[in-house]
Amino acid sequence: MGKDNFLIKAADPDNVAVVPHAGGLQAGVLLDNGITLLEFVPMGHKVALTDLAEGDRIIRYGQTIGYALHPIYAGAWVNELNMAMPAPPDLDAIRIEPQIASKPKPLTGYTFQGYRNPDGSVGAKNVLGITTSVQCVAGLTQYVTRKIKEELLPQYPNVDDVVALNHTYGCGVAIEAPAAMIPIRTIRNIAQNPNFGGEVMVIGLGCEKLRPEKLVPSAPEDREGPSPILYMQDPAFQGFQEMVDGAMELAVHHLEKLNRRRRETCTAADLVVGMQCGGSDAFSGLTANPVAGFAADLIVRAGGSVLFSEVTEVRDAVHLLTPRTTDVAVGQALIDEMKWYDQYLAWGQADRSANTTPGNKKGGLSNIVEKALGSIAKSGTSPISDVLGPGEKIRKKGLIFAATPASDFVCGTLQVAAGMNVHVFMTGRGTPYGLSMVPVIKVGSNSTLSSRWFDLIDFDAGQVATGEKTIEALGWALFHLILAVASGEKTVAADKLGLHNDLVLFNPGPLT
Amino acid sequence: MGKDNFLIKAADPDNVAVVPHAGGLQAGVLLDNGITLLEFVPMGHKVALTDLAEGDRIIRYGQTIGYALHPIYAGAWVNELNMAMPAPPDLDAIRIEPQIASKPKPLTGYTFQGYRNPDGSVGAKNVLGITTSVQCVAGLTQYVTRKIKEELLPQYPNVDDVVALNHTYGCGVAIEAPAAMIPIRTIRNIAQNPNFGGEVMVIGLGCEKLRPEKLVPSAPEDREGPSPILYMQDPAFQGFQEMVDGAMELAVHHLEKLNRRRRETCTAADLVVGMQCGGSDAFSGLTANPVAGFAADLIVRAGGSVLFSEVTEVRDAVHLLTPRTTDVAVGQALIDEMKWYDQYLAWGQADRSANTTPGNKKGGLSNIVEKALGSIAKSGTSPISDVLGPGEKIRKKGLIFAATPASDFVCGTLQVAAGMNVHVFMTGRGTPYGLSMVPVIKVGSNSTLSSRWFDLIDFDAGQVATGEKTIEALGWALFHLILAVASGEKTVAADKLGLHNDLVLFNPGPLT
Repeated sequence: MGKDNFLIKAADPDNVAVVPHAGGLQAGVLLDNGITLLEFVPMGHKVALTDLAEGDRIIRYGQTIGYALHPIYAGAWVNELNMAMPAPPDLDAIRIEPQIASKPKPLTGYTFQGYRNPDGSVGAKNVLGITTSVQCVAGLTQYVTRKIKEELLPQYPNVDDVVALNHTYGCGVAIEAPAAMIPIRTIRNIAQNPNFGGEVMVIGLGCEKLRPEKLVPSAPEDREGPSPILYMQDPAFQGFQEMVDGAMELAVHHLEKLNRRRRETCTAADLVVGMQCGGSDAFSGLTANPVAGFAADLIVRAGGSVLFSEVTEVRDAVHLLTPRTTDVAVGQALIDEMKWYDQYLAWGQADRSANTTPGNKKGGLSNIVEKALGSIAKSGTSPISDVLGPGEKIRKKGLIFAATPASDFVCGTLQVAAGMNVHVFMTGRGTPYGLSMVPVIKVGSNSTLSSRWFDLIDFDAGQVATGEKTIEALGWALFHLILAVASGEKTVAADKLGLHNDLVLFNPGPLT
Repeated sequence: MGKDNFLIKAADPDNVAVVPHAGGLQAGVLLDNGITLLEFVPMGHKVALTDLAEGDRIIRYGQTIGYALHPIYAGAWVNELNMAMPAPPDLDAIRIEPQIASKPKPLTGYTFQGYRNPDGSVGAKNVLGITTSVQCVAGLTQYVTRKIKEELLPQYPNVDDVVALNHTYGCGVAIEAPAAMIPIRTIRNIAQNPNFGGEVMVIGLGCEKLRPEKLVPSAPEDREGPSPILYMQDPAFQGFQEMVDGAMELAVHHLEKLNRRRRETCTAADLVVGMQCGGSDAFSGLTANPVAGFAADLIVRAGGSVLFSEVTEVRDAVHLLTPRTTDVAVGQALIDEMKWYDQYLAWGQADRSANTTPGNKKGGLSNIVEKALGSIAKSGTSPISDVLGPGEKIRKKGLIFAATPASDFVCGTLQVAAGMNVHVFMTGRGTPYGLSMVPVIKVGSNSTLSSRWFDLIDFDAGQVATGEKTIEALGWALFHLILAVASGEKTVAADKLGLHNDLVLFNPGPLT
């Protein structure tokens, strides 16, 4: 562009716009809209486009994101110090009226090379997962995973990796507490993620509350070969080394089955893409999230599935989403997930304002209302066909709201449980996020970050802000990248570097 | 012993006693007390010593552990199916009346070889800890820990290990919620564990809620050399490899300082031993826990510190502990921790009966009352000199109640934060537990387990049940083992095998 004196407006009615320039803009700069900046405004932050009186609405994305705490002149910096946060939408007052005019226009002819599973799902990777029924066995699981990787994996070239699905679920979780079903179903559904090909093996202790049989993907009578479960307390084992030998033997059986699998041509309808953002800035809602939303619409048009999540980042925009639900029951389920979370936060004497991090604010997001309006952009414009509770598994195609906390690792873990085969993660501040079982495409919301973190960010959406690229062009490019990653043709940065987070369960219930 | 027809009574008034024999005892066996067994009773389970009418008290450890649900004849199996659980002690009705007759008799002349720290604490290991201010950086921390271990550690022979102190604390934690102080102080105090020698380095992201400066052991102005904090978002880093290089450079500085340290003679007064049990059975309260309690008394007599924990395993026996507190304030603090936990469990619609696992019950522990009475045996008989909230750091010598959940990994993590330098872990069912920064001595409560898990259990307390050894003899042996492990002379099973659990934070507050 060359010119350094323009702002970016998110929607026509807005009375604030955002500084897109690295380094911000200095006081005295004459903007191309005729306004002179009254003070320095950092990159990603908002400038008032008109004079605002005390109490006036501050409008971004065409929605009220706050009220002026005192008079603000055109050209001034608008931030969390001079605006009050609006109340969240009253959930009981929202009338659920689905208003879907027409079905998304079908999109055909897009394919990828995936691993088709017995249950009809498709894996983007071919990974041996080793899950556990209790955290007590984590030491053995880590030990044998390392040993399998070193001694066995090289003999099975079609198997991508061996992953210990360690978690912190143990007998300390109060299993009768109503909320305990969330971590339990999460662990069970993680084992059924398509990228494990139905071949997860289970290491149990023997005396735990959560029975290992519940983690086996299909009924034991349907399977050939040995039981996929090994118990450390099995009296047959004399000492640790015999447990290790037992696990190695079991791994050989599963590796042989996984190694015989081959990628085959699948249509984009077999994609299940989890969308998440972490470390957002004011560009996230202008660049990365709308680009992801455009790609999401393409996937849904192709018959595939897209998950979006993060309850506290949807809560303040939920009235914009209920009209997009396919029927009243889906709309009500969406409202119910918001209500559950309101109560959960109230228990702990917190509310949705606990979301928005110092990084968000530094990046120009003044409050959770502004963050939510930018966050839902990643859901695109498609109808919302289903709502999943935390840890539930996908049961319909299309655009799906999978209710999760916004906490990145917890959200990702729950999307693994929901059954995503590819993950797209948008970041503005920079979050070095990665999962071992699902490829994570990291999308930068601004080019400053994307170029500085050149070996950590997979896709730069920042070019939208500079006007070099359109949302449409980058949305198509991201869609093609998703297909290439799902095919194993492109390796994401996190996998090149081996940067993988542990899974983190959501346990809203108490520990004993 | 040879004879297979005796039971073990815990205290004189008891009307039940426990079968100590591997494999249990068959119906029809004539016991040495003249009673004939009416049915098969498994090892670790209780036999009625007298006829009991419906509603009669069932007494073990001299305390009521339940009420007969229907008539039970002498020689019958007493278990959770034929006994009702008593109500917990009413916390508001307990009168706090410290009744300490005399100070523990001093014990002198016992020493170990430890690493003395600038703050006066003593390490049993010399470990480079790498902590983090936010879970986002876990990938980098793991990456550099592996690289430091492979490339640098061999050059520093006096440094025992390099440990990534990864955790699941992130900006998703509602930082303003009152309970959020628990995970925050836990992370801060873990970095001050004596086994890190005050040389922890910190990897931060840059935009997180929890400032990395808060994790640095001493004030930055007091320290020589570079800041111990590295931020991934530092604009000086162009890409991931430069971050890795920065972390390696910082590690060299800390490794050099740690490598210059030498063990010196310290008295047993410098011990801070964390006592915990996991996977308990009916023997735990007869063998392993009383042996640990005897050793605890020796440590306290020598001027050292012992932590015991696990609120739900103390709750039903708290009226037996308040008379042992050194003053009313300590007694009140103990009651207050019980009250806080009652409320915390009630929130989640659970209560203390959620403790006792299927493994406990299979091992003969019928309910939490019986479990608690056996559990507190590990506190010995010394006065209780202080009570710590979850994640607080030790501030007094002597026997200390450190309030924690009973969940093994969470309890261990909070005892690391409290400042233990050696850990003793009692198990009956078998739990393969281990920590990388603190040596864990695993004590088996029965010889069947200790011999089958010969390479996982460090110390067999089961010989008390067979009458081969006394509690006193094994208590002294455990005390000597603790000193040898603290000196680095003996290596525990978990360290030999490299079996180390991740730390697990206690976050009773909500996620956003």
